[in-house]
Amino acid sequence: MVKTYKIAVIPGDGIGIEVMQEGIKVLNTLEKLNKDIKFIFDWYDWGCEYYLTTGKMMDDDGIEKLKSYDAILLGAVGFPGVPDHISLRDLLLKIRQEFNQYINLRPIKLLAEEDCPLKNKGVKDIDMVFVRENTEGEYAGVGGIQREGTEEELAIQTSVFTRKNTEKVMEYAFRLAKSRNKLNKVTSVTKSNALNYSMVFWDKIFKEKAEQHKDIKTETFHVDATSMYMIQRPESFDVVVASNLFGDILTDLGATLQGGLGFAAGANINPEREYPSMFEPVHGSAPEIAGKGIANPIAMIWTVKMMLDFLEHEDLGQKIMGAIEEILKDRKKLTPDLGGNGTTSEVGDMICEAIKK
Amino acid sequence: MVKTYKIAVIPGDGIGIEVMQEGIKVLNTLEKLNKDIKFIFDWYDWGCEYYLTTGKMMDDDGIEKLKSYDAILLGAVGFPGVPDHISLRDLLLKIRQEFNQYINLRPIKLLAEEDCPLKNKGVKDIDMVFVRENTEGEYAGVGGIQREGTEEELAIQTSVFTRKNTEKVMEYAFRLAKSRNKLNKVTSVTKSNALNYSMVFWDKIFKEKAEQHKDIKTETFHVDATSMYMIQRPESFDVVVASNLFGDILTDLGATLQGGLGFAAGANINPEREYPSMFEPVHGSAPEIAGKGIANPIAMIWTVKMMLDFLEHEDLGQKIMGAIEEILKDRKKLTPDLGGNGTTSEVGDMICEAIKK
Ligand SMILES: CC(C)[C@H](C(=O)O)[C@@H](O)C(=O)O
Ligand SMILES: CC(C)[C@H](C(=O)O)[C@@H](O)C(=O)O
Repeated sequence: MVKTYKIAVIPGDGIGIEVMQEGIKVLNTLEKLNKDIKFIFDWYDWGCEYYLTTGKMMDDDGIEKLKSYDAILLGAVGFPGVPDHISLRDLLLKIRQEFNQYINLRPIKLLAEEDCPLKNKGVKDIDMVFVRENTEGEYAGVGGIQREGTEEELAIQTSVFTRKNTEKVMEYAFRLAKSRNKLNKVTSVTKSNALNYSMVFWDKIFKEKAEQHKDIKTETFHVDATSMYMIQRPESFDVVVASNLFGDILTDLGATLQGGLGFAAGANINPEREYPSMFEPVHGSAPEIAGKGIANPIAMIWTVKMMLDFLEHEDLGQKIMGAIEEILKDRKKLTPDLGGNGTTSEVGDMICEAIKK
Repeated sequence: MVKTYKIAVIPGDGIGIEVMQEGIKVLNTLEKLNKDIKFIFDWYDWGCEYYLTTGKMMDDDGIEKLKSYDAILLGAVGFPGVPDHISLRDLLLKIRQEFNQYINLRPIKLLAEEDCPLKNKGVKDIDMVFVRENTEGEYAGVGGIQREGTEEELAIQTSVFTRKNTEKVMEYAFRLAKSRNKLNKVTSVTKSNALNYSMVFWDKIFKEKAEQHKDIKTETFHVDATSMYMIQRPESFDVVVASNLFGDILTDLGATLQGGLGFAAGANINPEREYPSMFEPVHGSAPEIAGKGIANPIAMIWTVKMMLDFLEHEDLGQKIMGAIEEILKDRKKLTPDLGGNGTTSEVGDMICEAIKK
């Protein structure tokens, strides 16, 4: 039986467009090798250029259009000339929220020691996964400006944490810790010493959840301390559960440990599968290198692996990881961020060759 | 003419008490060497133990009592058994807010290459100062819990940014950049792509301030990217201005770059001198090592240097830094966090010896 998947492809802006080519290349390669799997790609040219001509980041019925897909692949969004809070709120954050993709899953795993910026840390030390809350919290978008333009002007921004969602995010983290078989541990990131409502609430729910999962070890650190421990003893982390903002910050920090954003893959997941999930690398559109064909496509390709895992083709996902590891070991032609002089498409080609072997 | 300074000393909890001894030892040493300077120390045993016996973190008229001092020296607050949001909100954060110490100044400077966790980075690469907003923003303490105990429970936490305060914080950062003569640059930390009111507001004010200081270069990064750049290219930072929460996170991260919290000094400053300023190291009370006499006192002693700078005794401050640098070069007896087997008081003694030379 042939399994056919309908994938919505939103390359977005800048290097998003360039790395997306390589992600699709890998999927095409896998398709050719496996007669029982088929992808139908529909491309959407939404993003900042689209905004500059239409005044919109996506079609008015964009969310409706995306509903029927098995998954969404997104490159990166954002470009000079369009304020970030428009380009992202109206596309990326909108999809995450409308499709209730309340889990943002981000693996932090070092593949080759030379890519790590830390002294005395190797591939065995850096292997954790972040479960980032992805639809509410600090990103609720609630707030306002009072007395605008006067000396008394002030801005407020309100975080919103619901019990239901927080519980689900933590539940996901505990289950993931069980399935990973690393340290059987969940670390919760808080800041309850200063954020005296939201994070006190977060801690309370984490404690309740920990009670329900006594077979999993738990620990709670303030976000400031967590950023420190990630550098000082990354090996002590397994699954980390964090709010939207804290997860955002710590996963970028984590990306540096694995060699930079060129390696940082991500998935925005709706675990109940009521809506499509969206797979996007952590990096942005990188205007400073866009158009040069030198962006590292590994994060995008690793993201494609996460999509395949989600579609329950873990075997194919493993093939991709094996291929990435192989080209990193060889280090024949890597992109400039890794000290090489290869191009985006050369790296994509090499990964496809390695998959075919 | 003898200058006499009245200093309120709040050792606090855990290692706060231990490192405070060394800070005072250094001040006593300087006093003996300089007949024209005198310190009067009043000790306050406020903190978590005080709370456990009195139900209060400080006296009811504590703020009133502190008002008459030239400066406050604080060790660290917090201890198991007292929830953090009580111990800190009712003492540390209260003093910062009541005394309008709206600047939290935190230098990040590597003194000895061996203490840096990064490959290929040395003392010349790590030298920046954070100007952290210290009285409002995410720490406003505004929020609540709705429908507590039900399935519909939710928590909200509101950040408040006023124009007046934000302007003053940024003004301070620009002036500091001018006086430092490093890169003549201020980096502003934002997250306006997601925090669509508070950080858009922050960016607007930063832009206005930049217009008023055209001789200073500026750049703006999102907080997630900043955490990455601090690891990848710390040498590109000079003065960094950040909100209360972002400053909190990034200065802990920065502390790792200088060798850990054992080096992280800090000052809570009321620049107008309407109220006393408070000098406290970045580290906490560290219950896990408290009582062992092995806490690194360097952060506290460096903090004492910042107090002397603020009291306009920069010459004495320089003596302290010289002494710290000397013992780090010798590496004869350092505390365990730096790989040695020295004690807190041995390190304090050595620094005093070096000052006397
Ligand atoms: C672009 C931005 C809104 C986004 C976020 O903060 O979530 C990005 O940084 C990420 O991590 O996916
Ligand atoms: C203890 C805590 C409330 C405090 C803060 O977040 O400001 C501390 O982390 C600091 O950085 O001084």
